[in-house]
Amino acid sequence: MVIQHYRDVEAIIPEEQGVKGVKMRRVIAEKEGAENFVMRVFEIEPGGNTPLHTHDWEHEVFILNGTAIVVDPSGEHEVKSGDVIFVPGGEEHQFRNESDKPLEFICLIPMRK
Amino acid sequence: MVIQHYRDVEAIIPEEQGVKGVKMRRVIAEKEGAENFVMRVFEIEPGGNTPLHTHDWEHEVFILNGTAIVVDPSGEHEVKSGDVIFVPGGEEHQFRNESDKPLEFICLIPMRK
Repeated sequence: MVIQHYRDVEAIIPEEQGVKGVKMRRVIAEKEGAENFVMRVFEIEPGGNTPLHTHDWEHEVFILNGTAIVVDPSGEHEVKSGDVIFVPGGEEHQFRNESDKPLEFICLIPMRK
Repeated sequence: MVIQHYRDVEAIIPEEQGVKGVKMRRVIAEKEGAENFVMRVFEIEPGGNTPLHTHDWEHEVFILNGTAIVVDPSGEHEVKSGDVIFVPGGEEHQFRNESDKPLEFICLIPMRK
Protein backbone atom coordinates (compact mmCIF):
# COMPACT_ATOMS: atom_id res chain seq x y z
CA MET A 1 0.00 0.00 0.00
CA VAL A 2 1.25 3.49 -0.83
CA ILE A 3 -0.10 6.46 1.16
CA GLN A 4 0.82 10.08 0.42
CA HIS A 5 -0.80 13.49 0.57
CA TYR A 6 -1.50 14.80 -2.92
CA ARG A 7 0.30 18.07 -2.16
CA ASP A 8 3.49 16.15 -1.33
CA VAL A 9 3.68 14.95 -4.95
CA GLU A 10 5.77 17.15 -7.24
CA ALA A 11 3.72 19.53 -9.38
CA ILE A 12 4.37 19.56 -13.12
CA ILE A 13 3.58 22.55 -15.34
CA PRO A 14 2.06 21.05 -18.52
CA GLU A 15 3.70 22.54 -21.63
CA GLU A 16 1.01 21.70 -24.16
CA GLN A 17 -0.06 24.64 -26.32
CA GLY A 18 -3.12 26.43 -24.96
CA VAL A 19 -2.44 25.62 -21.30
CA LYS A 20 -2.58 28.63 -18.93
CA GLY A 21 -2.05 28.71 -15.16
CA VAL A 22 -2.21 24.93 -14.70
CA LYS A 23 -0.31 22.62 -12.32
CA MET A 24 -0.65 18.83 -12.45
CA ARG A 25 0.32 16.19 -9.89
CA ARG A 26 0.43 12.52 -10.97
CA VAL A 27 -0.55 11.21 -7.54
CA ILE A 28 -1.11 7.51 -8.38
CA ALA A 29 0.92 6.43 -11.40
CA GLU A 30 3.69 4.00 -12.47
CA LYS A 31 5.90 4.89 -9.48
CA GLU A 32 3.14 3.92 -7.03
CA GLY A 33 2.53 0.63 -8.88
CA ALA A 34 -0.51 1.56 -10.98
CA GLU A 35 -0.91 -0.58 -14.11
CA ASN A 36 -4.36 0.27 -15.49
CA PHE A 37 -5.19 3.93 -14.84
CA VAL A 38 -3.51 7.08 -13.53
CA MET A 39 -4.88 9.53 -10.95
CA ARG A 40 -3.82 13.13 -11.47
CA VAL A 41 -4.81 16.24 -9.46
CA PHE A 42 -5.02 19.52 -11.38
CA GLU A 43 -4.87 23.02 -9.96
CA ILE A 44 -5.95 25.92 -12.17
CA GLU A 45 -5.41 29.47 -11.02
CA PRO A 46 -8.06 32.18 -11.57
CA GLY A 47 -8.08 33.07 -15.28
CA GLY A 48 -6.34 29.82 -16.23
CA ASN A 49 -7.49 26.99 -18.48
CA THR A 50 -6.62 23.66 -20.01
CA PRO A 51 -6.44 23.57 -23.82
CA LEU A 52 -9.57 23.07 -25.94
CA HIS A 53 -8.52 19.70 -27.32
CA THR A 54 -9.53 16.18 -28.31
CA HIS A 55 -7.86 12.81 -27.81
CA ASP A 56 -8.79 9.15 -28.08
CA TRP A 57 -8.91 8.42 -24.35
CA GLU A 58 -11.53 9.30 -21.75
CA HIS A 59 -11.40 11.44 -18.58
CA GLU A 60 -13.08 10.67 -15.25
CA VAL A 61 -13.16 13.90 -13.24
CA PHE A 62 -14.18 14.87 -9.68
CA ILE A 63 -14.26 18.59 -8.79
CA LEU A 64 -12.58 19.05 -5.39
CA ASN A 65 -12.59 22.81 -4.83
CA GLY A 66 -13.82 25.86 -6.69
CA THR A 67 -15.91 26.20 -9.82
CA ALA A 68 -15.13 25.60 -13.47
CA ILE A 69 -16.58 26.26 -16.87
CA VAL A 70 -16.39 23.00 -18.78
CA VAL A 71 -16.69 23.17 -22.54
CA ASP A 72 -17.91 20.34 -24.78
CA PRO A 73 -19.46 20.30 -28.28
CA SER A 74 -22.86 21.25 -26.76
CA GLY A 75 -21.54 24.44 -25.13
CA GLU A 76 -20.36 25.72 -21.73
CA HIS A 77 -21.38 24.14 -18.42
CA GLU A 78 -20.69 25.44 -14.91
CA VAL A 79 -19.50 22.81 -12.45
CA LYS A 80 -18.72 23.00 -8.74
CA SER A 81 -17.23 21.00 -5.87
CA GLY A 82 -18.69 17.48 -5.76
CA ASP A 83 -19.59 17.32 -9.45
CA VAL A 84 -18.31 14.36 -11.44
CA ILE A 85 -17.69 14.56 -15.18
CA PHE A 86 -17.18 11.81 -17.73
CA VAL A 87 -15.52 12.99 -20.96
CA PRO A 88 -15.67 10.15 -23.51
CA GLY A 89 -12.71 9.51 -25.80
CA GLY A 90 -12.85 11.59 -28.98
CA GLU A 91 -14.93 14.45 -27.51
CA GLU A 92 -13.53 18.00 -27.57
CA HIS A 93 -13.29 19.53 -24.08
CA GLN A 94 -11.76 22.33 -22.01
CA PHE A 95 -11.69 23.32 -18.32
CA ARG A 96 -11.59 27.06 -17.52
CA ASN A 97 -11.36 28.81 -14.17
CA GLU A 98 -13.30 32.05 -14.62
CA SER A 99 -13.68 32.54 -10.84
CA ASP A 100 -11.43 34.45 -8.41
CA LYS A 101 -10.49 31.31 -6.44
CA PRO A 102 -8.24 28.36 -7.28
CA LEU A 103 -9.90 25.37 -8.96
CA GLU A 104 -8.81 21.84 -8.06
CA PHE A 105 -10.01 18.60 -9.61
CA ILE A 106 -9.06 14.96 -9.91
CA CYS A 107 -8.76 13.65 -13.48
CA LEU A 108 -8.12 9.99 -14.26
CA ILE A 109 -6.98 8.54 -17.57
CA PRO A 110 -6.28 4.99 -18.73
CA MET A 111 -2.59 4.08 -18.66
CA ARG A 112 -2.54 2.28 -22.00
CA LYS A 113 -3.92 4.98 -24.22
CA MET B 1 -19.99 14.56 -21.64
CA VAL B 2 -21.92 13.53 -18.55
CA ILE B 3 -22.06 15.91 -15.56
CA GLN B 4 -23.75 15.04 -12.27
CA HIS B 5 -23.27 15.75 -8.58
CA TYR B 6 -22.06 12.64 -6.75
CA ARG B 7 -24.86 12.94 -4.17
CA ASP B 8 -27.47 12.78 -6.95
CA VAL B 9 -26.35 9.23 -7.76
CA GLU B 10 -28.29 6.49 -5.97
CA ALA B 11 -26.51 5.10 -2.90
CA ILE B 12 -26.12 1.33 -2.64
CA ILE B 13 -25.67 -0.48 0.68
CA PRO B 14 -23.00 -3.13 -0.01
CA GLU B 15 -24.11 -6.52 1.32
CA GLU B 16 -20.71 -8.20 1.51
CA GLN B 17 -20.01 -9.88 4.86
CA GLY B 18 -18.06 -7.66 7.25
CA VAL B 19 -19.41 -4.36 5.88
CA LYS B 20 -20.78 -1.98 8.53
CA GLY B 21 -22.29 1.49 8.06
CA VAL B 22 -21.18 1.87 4.41
CA LYS B 23 -22.91 3.54 1.45
CA MET B 24 -21.48 3.41 -2.08
CA ARG B 25 -22.28 5.49 -5.14
CA ARG B 26 -21.06 4.32 -8.58
CA VAL B 27 -20.68 7.85 -9.94
CA ILE B 28 -18.88 7.09 -13.24
CA ALA B 29 -19.64 3.58 -14.49
CA GLU B 30 -21.20 1.70 -17.43
CA LYS B 31 -24.28 3.95 -17.48
CA GLU B 32 -22.13 7.05 -17.96
CA GLY B 33 -20.12 5.35 -20.75
CA ALA B 34 -17.02 4.24 -18.81
CA GLU B 35 -15.22 1.31 -20.41
CA ASN B 36 -11.94 0.98 -18.52
CA PHE B 37 -12.38 1.95 -14.86
CA VAL B 38 -15.19 2.82 -12.45
CA MET B 39 -15.33 5.78 -10.03
CA ARG B 40 -17.19 5.06 -6.79
CA VAL B 41 -17.70 7.37 -3.79
CA PHE B 42 -17.93 5.69 -0.37
CA GLU B 43 -19.47 7.13 2.79
CA ILE B 44 -18.72 5.38 6.09
CA GLU B 45 -20.52 6.45 9.24
CA PRO B 46 -18.72 6.76 12.60
CA GLY B 47 -17.96 3.24 13.85
CA GLY B 48 -18.38 1.72 10.39
CA ASN B 49 -15.91 -0.18 8.22
CA THR B 50 -15.34 -2.00 4.95
CA PRO B 51 -14.47 -5.70 5.25
CA LEU B 52 -10.90 -6.83 5.85
CA HIS B 53 -10.52 -8.57 2.49
CA THR B 54 -8.32 -9.33 -0.50
CA HIS B 55 -9.02 -9.44 -4.24
CA ASP B 56 -7.04 -9.52 -7.45
CA TRP B 57 -7.71 -5.94 -8.53
CA GLU B 58 -6.25 -2.68 -7.29
CA HIS B 59 -7.83 0.38 -5.62
CA GLU B 60 -6.96 4.02 -6.27
CA VAL B 61 -8.33 6.08 -3.38
CA PHE B 62 -8.63 9.82 -2.58
CA ILE B 63 -9.86 10.80 0.91
CA LEU B 64 -12.45 13.59 0.53
CA ASN B 65 -13.66 14.23 4.09
CA GLY B 66 -12.90 12.90 7.54
CA THR B 67 -10.24 10.51 8.76
CA ALA B 68 -9.82 6.75 8.38
CA ILE B 69 -7.77 3.95 9.78
CA VAL B 70 -6.49 1.96 6.80
CA VAL B 71 -5.27 -1.55 7.47
CA ASP B 72 -2.75 -3.41 5.33
CA PRO B 73 -0.38 -6.33 6.08
CA SER B 74 2.08 -3.87 7.72
CA GLY B 75 -0.48 -2.59 10.26
CA GLU B 76 -2.83 0.36 10.79
CA HIS B 77 -2.32 3.78 9.19
CA GLU B 78 -4.27 6.97 9.86
CA VAL B 79 -5.27 8.92 6.75
CA LYS B 80 -7.02 12.25 6.31
CA SER B 81 -8.59 14.51 3.70
CA GLY B 82 -6.26 14.92 0.70
CA ASP B 83 -4.41 11.64 1.20
CA VAL B 84 -4.21 9.29 -1.76
CA ILE B 85 -3.84 5.54 -1.33
CA PHE B 86 -2.83 2.87 -3.82
CA VAL B 87 -3.84 -0.65 -2.78
CA PRO B 88 -2.21 -3.15 -5.18
CA GLY B 89 -4.15 -6.22 -6.31
CA GLY B 90 -3.76 -9.17 -3.94
CA GLU B 91 -3.06 -7.08 -0.82
CA GLU B 92 -5.36 -7.42 2.22
CA HIS B 93 -6.94 -4.11 3.25
CA GLN B 94 -9.70 -2.47 5.27
CA PHE B 95 -11.04 1.07 5.80
CA ARG B 96 -12.41 1.93 9.26
CA ASN B 97 -14.02 5.12 10.52
CA GLU B 98 -13.05 5.33 14.19
CA SER B 99 -13.83 9.07 14.36
CA ASP B 100 -17.08 10.81 15.31
CA LYS B 101 -17.58 12.35 11.84
CA PRO B 102 -18.59 10.81 8.49
CA LEU B 103 -15.77 9.59 6.26
CA GLU B 104 -15.99 10.03 2.49
CA PHE B 105 -13.55 8.80 -0.11
CA ILE B 106 -13.30 8.13 -3.83
CA CYS B 107 -12.26 4.58 -4.77
CA LEU B 108 -11.59 3.53 -8.36
CA ILE B 109 -11.33 -0.01 -9.68
CA PRO B 110 -10.65 -1.43 -13.13
CA MET B 111 -13.80 -2.45 -15.00
CA ARG B 112 -12.46 -5.73 -16.35
CA LYS B 113 -11.36 -7.35 -13.14
